[in-house]
Amino acid sequence: MGDGRKSFWAWGYEERLPNDEARKMLAETLGRALGFKGLTPRPLPKLEDVRIPAPRIPAPPHLDGSASLLDRVTHTYGRSYRDIVRGFAGDFTPAPDWVAYPKDEAQIAKLLAYCSKEKIAVIPFGGGTSVVGGVEAVVGDGYRGVIALDLRNLDRVLEVDLTSRAARIQAGATGPRLEAQLAPHGVTLRHYPQSFEHSTLGGWIATRAGGHFATLYTHIDDLVESVRMVTPTGLFATRRLPASGAGPSPERLVLGSEGILGVITEAWVRVQARPRWRASANVRFAKLEDGVQAARAIAQAGLYPSNCRLLDAREAMLHGVSADGVTVLLLAFESADHPLDAWIDRALSLAKAAGGTCPDGTRLRDAGQGTEERTGAAEAERGDAAAWRQAFFDAPYLQSALITMGVIADTFETACTWDGFDALHRAVKDAVRGAMQDACGAGVISCRFTHVYPDGPAPYYTFLAPARPGEELAQWERIKRVASDALIANGATITHHHAVGRLHRPWHERERPEPFGRALQAAKRALDPAGILNPGVLVDP
Amino acid sequence: MGDGRKSFWAWGYEERLPNDEARKMLAETLGRALGFKGLTPRPLPKLEDVRIPAPRIPAPPHLDGSASLLDRVTHTYGRSYRDIVRGFAGDFTPAPDWVAYPKDEAQIAKLLAYCSKEKIAVIPFGGGTSVVGGVEAVVGDGYRGVIALDLRNLDRVLEVDLTSRAARIQAGATGPRLEAQLAPHGVTLRHYPQSFEHSTLGGWIATRAGGHFATLYTHIDDLVESVRMVTPTGLFATRRLPASGAGPSPERLVLGSEGILGVITEAWVRVQARPRWRASANVRFAKLEDGVQAARAIAQAGLYPSNCRLLDAREAMLHGVSADGVTVLLLAFESADHPLDAWIDRALSLAKAAGGTCPDGTRLRDAGQGTEERTGAAEAERGDAAAWRQAFFDAPYLQSALITMGVIADTFETACTWDGFDALHRAVKDAVRGAMQDACGAGVISCRFTHVYPDGPAPYYTFLAPARPGEELAQWERIKRVASDALIANGATITHHHAVGRLHRPWHERERPEPFGRALQAAKRALDPAGILNPGVLVDP
Repeated sequence: MGDGRKSFWAWGYEERLPNDEARKMLAETLGRALGFKGLTPRPLPKLEDVRIPAPRIPAPPHLDGSASLLDRVTHTYGRSYRDIVRGFAGDFTPAPDWVAYPKDEAQIAKLLAYCSKEKIAVIPFGGGTSVVGGVEAVVGDGYRGVIALDLRNLDRVLEVDLTSRAARIQAGATGPRLEAQLAPHGVTLRHYPQSFEHSTLGGWIATRAGGHFATLYTHIDDLVESVRMVTPTGLFATRRLPASGAGPSPERLVLGSEGILGVITEAWVRVQARPRWRASANVRFAKLEDGVQAARAIAQAGLYPSNCRLLDAREAMLHGVSADGVTVLLLAFESADHPLDAWIDRALSLAKAAGGTCPDGTRLRDAGQGTEERTGAAEAERGDAAAWRQAFFDAPYLQSALITMGVIADTFETACTWDGFDALHRAVKDAVRGAMQDACGAGVISCRFTHVYPDGPAPYYTFLAPARPGEELAQWERIKRVASDALIANGATITHHHAVGRLHRPWHERERPEPFGRALQAAKRALDPAGILNPGVLVDP
Repeated sequence: MGDGRKSFWAWGYEERLPNDEARKMLAETLGRALGFKGLTPRPLPKLEDVRIPAPRIPAPPHLDGSASLLDRVTHTYGRSYRDIVRGFAGDFTPAPDWVAYPKDEAQIAKLLAYCSKEKIAVIPFGGGTSVVGGVEAVVGDGYRGVIALDLRNLDRVLEVDLTSRAARIQAGATGPRLEAQLAPHGVTLRHYPQSFEHSTLGGWIATRAGGHFATLYTHIDDLVESVRMVTPTGLFATRRLPASGAGPSPERLVLGSEGILGVITEAWVRVQARPRWRASANVRFAKLEDGVQAARAIAQAGLYPSNCRLLDAREAMLHGVSADGVTVLLLAFESADHPLDAWIDRALSLAKAAGGTCPDGTRLRDAGQGTEERTGAAEAERGDAAAWRQAFFDAPYLQSALITMGVIADTFETACTWDGFDALHRAVKDAVRGAMQDACGAGVISCRFTHVYPDGPAPYYTFLAPARPGEELAQWERIKRVASDALIANGATITHHHAVGRLHRPWHERERPEPFGRALQAAKRALDPAGILNPGVLVDP
């Protein structure tokens, strides 16, 4: 983790960005491994050198906020590839004019009323980790200015109901903040998006974030019991219910609304006891297709593993799980209630029936007893959950470092039905490889499944290509466009958990039913008649 | 099952309504058991005697349909208590003027265009089993007439994708129709609402029907992969996706829309292999509280039983599961993939830890091997799934029979958090008993949990009271009102799976967030600008 100063342009904490020495080594290693020529780390940007326009509006009266350089710079972008490239170049042209730090719902309501009257756009801002331009102040010409509404002062766990296993948590709480407050109660949310350290509950809800579990409770959607959202025309507060059949779900209109309908202020979420038992295994496959078959069989068996991540050969190598060109399935079960032998045994049988081998055997852990068993010749840290988790949370730092040495490094993700995966995968790989070749002269792409469902996987792609300094964005845009086109043309979704934002909107418009776009726009106009909330995202205001 | 002629006024097939002899015996038994005085079966109504107004509009040109007496009568009501009382009395005043039987989406679009132009209300009609006035033609004065749009001609399974375990099914297929077409493929939807024999896939989606599984995949919501809906302003067709994070879910706007946004024509739904293994047990508790504690522990354990139904002492008696005043938990697991010993053993341990006993032991069945094991002194049919299922599907016939002898017999259901259940249950019982005493001088109420979630149960109430002939509806309305008030006042939902319709709308307006009502109305107006679709349901047109 970390709690130092956040970088104004790169991912996360300054102290965790690889230093000059590390970046130099990384450039050499990567150049050798991938054949990218001339990778050289460039000097990091300085806050005092950034380009940023003067604020266009005065501070709203009687509200907490700031127009300081640091506040405006740190609320200009999310953390997409484009954002980091622009930040690295010191370009903060789209900065908001003011940053609000409301302390309660009343202040939020007051700000929304003021901005509705004054025609000022408001961008709700959680952890600022959007990788899709969700918080960028590109709002068109119809506004006198833009205010970023930062929820950081609303970061408390307000109530814990141990009987119903639920907690009432303010929207501005980051992952570590809310877990630290839940821990004394012996419960946990266990929602770990890659942005966990920095992103917030409200942000997760607004963007339908994908979390820890590879099956079953995959999205924050599944963990939201009720939600409160301040809209410009009143409070949108749902009931605490385990389920309901009363009309279309009001929570589901808030989930994925990306700040266009209101400002999410708090939610009751479903928590659980800390897991005591854990069972895990790494299964190896000579061919990707066999791994896919195994993942599908397990996803359709009603076993519900917490981890069922399939890594293609390159991903397995990148993550240090395997160096010998095999596909790897990371399999794990966890429970606070019961040992998991029956579960992992059956999942392993299914994986082996699909051609998998498990040379390291199974690991069974019982935290209550402090015991750990291994079957087979399990090696020390291989496939260890903690190691995977560290690499998982470090990956975005690596991306920032790569950008400083002129490497295009980005990810995109989707979901599709099992019967559609082969064609989709081929189309995506061909399209992205072709675009990397055309735009950059080289490049590699890898794939993993982050989540699996009975009816399909959620493939997640990483691509790396050498950039020409100053042309990175045009090169990247070309690759991103063909990748997105391939997803939509092959029946997949433009995002399984990265959200839509400004970046994915053209493809979201092709994906969603046309009448749904009109219905959503009508709903937005009913709740936000002045059209001030996050204009440009999802629908026109 | 059955495939005879459907009753024009009562539940289901004519042949399965208890005959005169059976009704006489039932009246005597019930009079004795509950102390209701003077129960006498009255003669059944005849179609030729019904009161029905003349049609107000001509048949729309070039469309398939009918204005015959039988067609209009069988599309006047759903099958709520009120509906059956009015049907039994021969009162079909709110009959639709015409019944459309479109054969494809093009005919539906044509009908919607015609009715938008002519200001004729359209009520989408599936199986006609609504218990909340969802299909009743009470639409206000703003319409020249009303057309019931019956989907019965769209009843086919169009595609089965065994790789992704999904099937494309037309909305007018009833439960038996779609299961019969899936069976040759070796798969099943396994969605069994009590109305299964008569209700349709489209109706389930429009009303968010609750199904077979007591945990996990409890609603049809969880089984819908994509949906097609014809709106007056265009086709609303979503992609086949196992999951997505792209904006608010379009499917979730259709789920629960109760015919106000469009006509659902088909859906891809998630199917599964036929279960091979089954493990079940009946657990007995001296006190309801202990049974609640057991149900909660199992719901929070991550075991996901297919059945986890808790019956209070009266329900257990009514269902023939126990005659000695104990609370009973019906517990079952099923799987197409693996034996369930570990699952049922752990669930039974949890139930026993809460004070339960299991004198009949566990039943383990393996349909593949044709084997059956019993531990303990398992009695022949006690707790047998088939027996429970038969009683479950027969219950609505019993209700119709009770109405003919002047018994108010109805059910209502809800969901709440575990920490709120005790107070809710007390309030509901007190309110309903008080209202039955005031209105009828007597009455009984019982409770079961139909579904359980980690954060709360779905309690389902049945009440019986003696009616004064001719005053039934006023008596019933009083009871229904206090019951609904008690649900809303105690933080519960007006419906976990019966839907809102015209009956629950006043309470739905108290339950839902005020801005959500406006958003939904705005969405409706965007898709149905003439306001012709099921006016009066959920929101004003």
